[in-house]
Amino acid sequence: MTSTPRTPPADVLSAAEVADLDAHWRAANYLSVGQIYLMANPLLTEPLAPEHIKPRLLGHWGTSPGLNLVHTHLNRVIKARGLSALCVWGPGHGGPAVLANSWLEGSYSETYPGIGRDAAGMGALFKQFSFPGGVPSHVAPETPGSIHEGGELGYALTHAYGAAFDHPDLVVACVIGDGEAETGPLAASWHSNKFLDPVHDGAVLPILHLNGYKIANPTVLARLPEDELDALLRGYGHDPLHVEGDEPEAVHRALAAALDLALDRIAAVRRAAREDGVTERPRWPLIVLRTPKGWTGPKEVDGLPVEGTWRAHQVPLPGVRDDPDHLRALEAWMRSYRPEELFDPSGRPTAQVLRYVPEGPARLGATPYANGGLLLRDLPLPPLEDHAVPIDRPGTALHEPTRVLGGLLEEVMAATAGRRDFRVVGPDETASNRLDALYEATGKAWQARTLPTDEHLSRDGRVMEVLSEHLCQGWLEGYLLTGRHGLFSSYEAFAHIVDSMVNQHIKWLRTSRRLPWRRPIASLNYLLTSHVWRQDHNGFSHQDPGFVDHVLNKSPEVVRVYLPPDANTLLVTAGHVLASRDYVNVVVAGKQPGFDWLTLDQARAHCARGAGAWEWAGTEDGGREPDVVLACAGDVPTLETLAAASLLRHHLPELAVRVVNVVDMTRLLPHGEHPHGMPDAEYDALFTRDKPVIFAYHGYPWLVHRLAYRRAGHPHLHVRGYKEEGTTTTPFDMVVRNDLDRYRLVMDVIDRVPGLGVRAVALRQAMADVRTRHHDWIREHGTDLPEVADWSWDG
Amino acid sequence: MTSTPRTPPADVLSAAEVADLDAHWRAANYLSVGQIYLMANPLLTEPLAPEHIKPRLLGHWGTSPGLNLVHTHLNRVIKARGLSALCVWGPGHGGPAVLANSWLEGSYSETYPGIGRDAAGMGALFKQFSFPGGVPSHVAPETPGSIHEGGELGYALTHAYGAAFDHPDLVVACVIGDGEAETGPLAASWHSNKFLDPVHDGAVLPILHLNGYKIANPTVLARLPEDELDALLRGYGHDPLHVEGDEPEAVHRALAAALDLALDRIAAVRRAAREDGVTERPRWPLIVLRTPKGWTGPKEVDGLPVEGTWRAHQVPLPGVRDDPDHLRALEAWMRSYRPEELFDPSGRPTAQVLRYVPEGPARLGATPYANGGLLLRDLPLPPLEDHAVPIDRPGTALHEPTRVLGGLLEEVMAATAGRRDFRVVGPDETASNRLDALYEATGKAWQARTLPTDEHLSRDGRVMEVLSEHLCQGWLEGYLLTGRHGLFSSYEAFAHIVDSMVNQHIKWLRTSRRLPWRRPIASLNYLLTSHVWRQDHNGFSHQDPGFVDHVLNKSPEVVRVYLPPDANTLLVTAGHVLASRDYVNVVVAGKQPGFDWLTLDQARAHCARGAGAWEWAGTEDGGREPDVVLACAGDVPTLETLAAASLLRHHLPELAVRVVNVVDMTRLLPHGEHPHGMPDAEYDALFTRDKPVIFAYHGYPWLVHRLAYRRAGHPHLHVRGYKEEGTTTTPFDMVVRNDLDRYRLVMDVIDRVPGLGVRAVALRQAMADVRTRHHDWIREHGTDLPEVADWSWDG
Repeated sequence: MTSTPRTPPADVLSAAEVADLDAHWRAANYLSVGQIYLMANPLLTEPLAPEHIKPRLLGHWGTSPGLNLVHTHLNRVIKARGLSALCVWGPGHGGPAVLANSWLEGSYSETYPGIGRDAAGMGALFKQFSFPGGVPSHVAPETPGSIHEGGELGYALTHAYGAAFDHPDLVVACVIGDGEAETGPLAASWHSNKFLDPVHDGAVLPILHLNGYKIANPTVLARLPEDELDALLRGYGHDPLHVEGDEPEAVHRALAAALDLALDRIAAVRRAAREDGVTERPRWPLIVLRTPKGWTGPKEVDGLPVEGTWRAHQVPLPGVRDDPDHLRALEAWMRSYRPEELFDPSGRPTAQVLRYVPEGPARLGATPYANGGLLLRDLPLPPLEDHAVPIDRPGTALHEPTRVLGGLLEEVMAATAGRRDFRVVGPDETASNRLDALYEATGKAWQARTLPTDEHLSRDGRVMEVLSEHLCQGWLEGYLLTGRHGLFSSYEAFAHIVDSMVNQHIKWLRTSRRLPWRRPIASLNYLLTSHVWRQDHNGFSHQDPGFVDHVLNKSPEVVRVYLPPDANTLLVTAGHVLASRDYVNVVVAGKQPGFDWLTLDQARAHCARGAGAWEWAGTEDGGREPDVVLACAGDVPTLETLAAASLLRHHLPELAVRVVNVVDMTRLLPHGEHPHGMPDAEYDALFTRDKPVIFAYHGYPWLVHRLAYRRAGHPHLHVRGYKEEGTTTTPFDMVVRNDLDRYRLVMDVIDRVPGLGVRAVALRQAMADVRTRHHDWIREHGTDLPEVADWSWDG
Repeated sequence: MTSTPRTPPADVLSAAEVADLDAHWRAANYLSVGQIYLMANPLLTEPLAPEHIKPRLLGHWGTSPGLNLVHTHLNRVIKARGLSALCVWGPGHGGPAVLANSWLEGSYSETYPGIGRDAAGMGALFKQFSFPGGVPSHVAPETPGSIHEGGELGYALTHAYGAAFDHPDLVVACVIGDGEAETGPLAASWHSNKFLDPVHDGAVLPILHLNGYKIANPTVLARLPEDELDALLRGYGHDPLHVEGDEPEAVHRALAAALDLALDRIAAVRRAAREDGVTERPRWPLIVLRTPKGWTGPKEVDGLPVEGTWRAHQVPLPGVRDDPDHLRALEAWMRSYRPEELFDPSGRPTAQVLRYVPEGPARLGATPYANGGLLLRDLPLPPLEDHAVPIDRPGTALHEPTRVLGGLLEEVMAATAGRRDFRVVGPDETASNRLDALYEATGKAWQARTLPTDEHLSRDGRVMEVLSEHLCQGWLEGYLLTGRHGLFSSYEAFAHIVDSMVNQHIKWLRTSRRLPWRRPIASLNYLLTSHVWRQDHNGFSHQDPGFVDHVLNKSPEVVRVYLPPDANTLLVTAGHVLASRDYVNVVVAGKQPGFDWLTLDQARAHCARGAGAWEWAGTEDGGREPDVVLACAGDVPTLETLAAASLLRHHLPELAVRVVNVVDMTRLLPHGEHPHGMPDAEYDALFTRDKPVIFAYHGYPWLVHRLAYRRAGHPHLHVRGYKEEGTTTTPFDMVVRNDLDRYRLVMDVIDRVPGLGVRAVALRQAMADVRTRHHDWIREHGTDLPEVADWSWDG
């Protein structure tokens, strides 16, 4: 069916070189085991005793020897070739391995001077691992050299590609465990090579590590016939190199040869693309590394096989503190690495161990690519004046807000043409989301075949479109974490596809912000458009405004949520989030034509406050508190609120109405709960303490209650929003179905303001009648009532 | 690299057969176009005029001709072979196609008698499509024959496999668009064939439809060289058949031949496995169908190419109502199908059109497999007494709740050994989640290679383990939607991976419940364990209790959330949810040893109420209201609350404490907002209207406020929960970091109950001192304080 799988020749290394590499590998394995088990006696200078053992044994041994092997060999080729390299450790739950290597190469002690490269430091390295007050068991922000936490699994390869884009000199190695390879996001990531430009981008070298088992089961890829696996990887566009074995010397030789072949191939691809102008998509190399799970660990424990099985996944000898047999087995295991050959009496790694360790920032634990803030430059943002829409009177002219934003993004894209440090990603929606001005400045990245009918595709484009939110998110995360800028534009409902990914990114940022050595990176910016209220082509399946709720559960120091109500406020918001650092910013904005409410200057002032009264829209007399507050957040609720305000102005002119618009949702939170939270006095002044507040909110109404429940005026807060009533229908019918329409809002006011009298009763009935008329009209005509379709602000 | 891609011979059909199939295809295409455009004049009995055109043109044409082609040809083979078949339409946004076919075969009119198979019915079919008050633009629950809404994309193939499991006679065809094929979940789904048993399961026939474009871009798979695509599909374990063309007759012949080959191959695989005992994993057939996007539609519009490009995606002629050229082009397009040959003057399809349409339930729109409730049998649930743990005194004995549940599940699994209508899915965590008793009754489904060290793998196992939450969810959805039962056990944090999938399933159920012809199906049951408070091996990346928040945003008629605090309440809850219908039930329960609090009878009574006072745990004197309510939900918060109650009992015995435990979170909602919501009087009686309530909640604390904000006592409600403070540490340190620990709860009580006096002040200081002592102790010893580790209930 396919050609014979390709196994590299095994004659790259001399015996001495094998011995040196093996010494490094043994040292890393020793240090990995030590971290899982020991809180004292790190060099085994005395026989192991129960009191040397941690009371809680936590960590993942199974993947660690494989990661140590890869790190050892990456060291060699980095040093030999002067490579600029980064490694994404997919099985990052094997934290002990990456920590061990960082300690060996010295980057750990440089980052954490309290943990020296000596016996005391080794002891501290061991004790702190998975110990309260110490370091997490996974590769994490605390781990030097990492941009990737390997806990959730699925995102290694997409992070690697994100890191490689626009870093033309970089080689990103990416270890992919065969467990992770079963996940959807990873399975989709293989096709990332159709989006990587060998001229302007770096290279990704996937190392598929088949150790055969996940937690308790064999893995799918490890159990495919070799020719089937080989066909699969060729189908992914790779040229696989197969390395397999359980005899260290042979594996050292084969892996070294494979890495040399792979890197030669990468160099040849680059030369061909950059010097010879070859444009055919290359077949990138890939290494399949098949070694036993928990290799070099206990072969058997209590009569059951461990090495090479799923039983090696976490802690192979669980009883060492209480069971003398287990303790003896642990000591034998650790001594099998011959630590006395690896560390001098003071605990320093020997020269042999360090022979292939690179220097300075070439070390994987010290590369600036893994601390992207070191590489970050401010984004060149043009003056917003160049893109703002002129406003004569509010609520009369219409613009598509995202199209206005597109002009700004085009200019940023053009201004970064040389620097290449800005990308826009989206699941095939950039044009649909009205951002197509971008194509004036760049194309859509595409390395596969093209046809004459295609438009805007280009090899070096910096708009990334693929029908996978997972890839969009992962690419952008990798891009930002390595020091660049970007924006993710998505259908609002389908942002939930990456709920779990954004969790991990927020957790990463929350922890990074607490580490002084991690430099701030550009924020992850979402533009959620094609939102819940405008799903004419799609309907119920595309209606979910809950991504905002999801991110607002996470760390307040990281999360920001904005709902700009018109084009100019969107511009101001976009300018703000694109310049910000270390946040996840969620911006919800419409793509359909919507009224302009604020001039650029007004928008700036309004966005700076985050929430404020629109005096021109209300009927306050200034001297006293209003009778009612009409609050709104989001473009459609703002429209309905303004229309309701207009109805009240005409029909109940004596009612003092205040209109409040909220752009920054976190302003509603108490001051102590979020950095943007309003002090109570400010909140009370804006919303009053005891007047009815009719709040028209873009999303699920209870979110507003969840934010504002501690406010004095909360008992008087009445929120309208989306309540999962939807189908394929008109925009106005959508707001009617969810009781967010202007007529319902007027009825809410009348129901809640006491003492309005008989005119109000009549108005309420009139409003109810219009809603009935709407129901009849729309079923007959399929369109909205003329008075709705033709409405504009007349205040 | 690979063998030449295989194209089937093209001599299967006679000329008359081609003509008959083509007539059906043309009829379906005609009906598809009519639905997108027309609100009158369905048979074009008069020249098209603007008033015949809908005011809003909504729908997706591009994929429709391909879906119509597949449906036409599936009809033929179903009829010719007497197949039991179901089709999952991945590009279900091409709703007009599936609706057209259902109308043609008569299943539409049987389901909706108001829409007859005549001219009036055709007119109604056209008008209702994407029209307010009509039917959605996608395949949806309203669509006969469907189990799959094709809006979000990604889940077609996993739904197809779910439908095929344990339906040995069924063939599930699955159309996969090349856009959808870029998603992560779809990319992972290909390997589902390693879990499908040719003896006990049906077959899945993927039809990869490459029409070349998604919304605005070419697709990756369509632009791969043919040999690369072929290698990929072979790597997925398939034997691909390639059909390609843009000339109808040739494509009819090639597709018919490919379907015959594929079905012959499926029959041969079944025979080999079922009669000859072949156990080698078969290479299942797959059809690659390459036809133009928007085939048979306008070739050009306004001078730009449309057929065969992304411009055919939605509505190719957008201006028909206003632009006479567009209107003429539409009429020419519709007349190109020669409707006068396809429908008689009364609007009925001609005999030629219907020649290959199957009869009765064999029709794709009438198969009971797509209305799973018709096939559903009650699950045989054993008496809970057989599995309940005995309780002498509460809070003294420990059990792992999920292990106790495992015994119940084992018995259900054993009782369904013959019926084969119950499966448990999970991302490689069944044993880790302590449900391994299941392996006494069945194995883990596995068709790939096995090794002697493997355990519990079996070809016909009904536990499904794969490291992909997407596959688990999709398989289970497909299984339930076709009339069976199941459970998904997952790490709590990673349930977010399927946030967007569960959205769609909830929306499906919400809509199905409103359709009388859709019979109730078994609920989708989640067991979320390995929860936020017990992530010793993993830490911060594995801590997120927000899946509950996510589902509680969705339709209350569908969503249920339970937090049983011990083994017996988990048993009662499990018994309840496994017997329920049309819900999504989320059950959060611990797998670590936890105290037993309630006997089985007490658990039954407590779960029936959903929330109630535990009198034995409090210090009320019965006659008057308590001074304070200690409320709790979730196993760890219950433990901390009981420990706090014990401290208060000893140190402030005069304080009247009521302990309330909440199992069913939706009981906190107002009565009108959720079917389980408590009436205010009941809530007030339980929680009081004005006494402090210290609520220890399992997840994000603001969720409780979001549920209870309308209650009279809400201003006195103080909630503790998870607030994103975590790392690798001990269970008790986790609760301390998040201020949920027993000592903090006692301090909260003292802070909120007025007039407690000097003993309370001293107690508060003592509590603060223990927390300080905890901080010092844990950093030194790595374990919890002895008084915490050794605590048991002494009430």
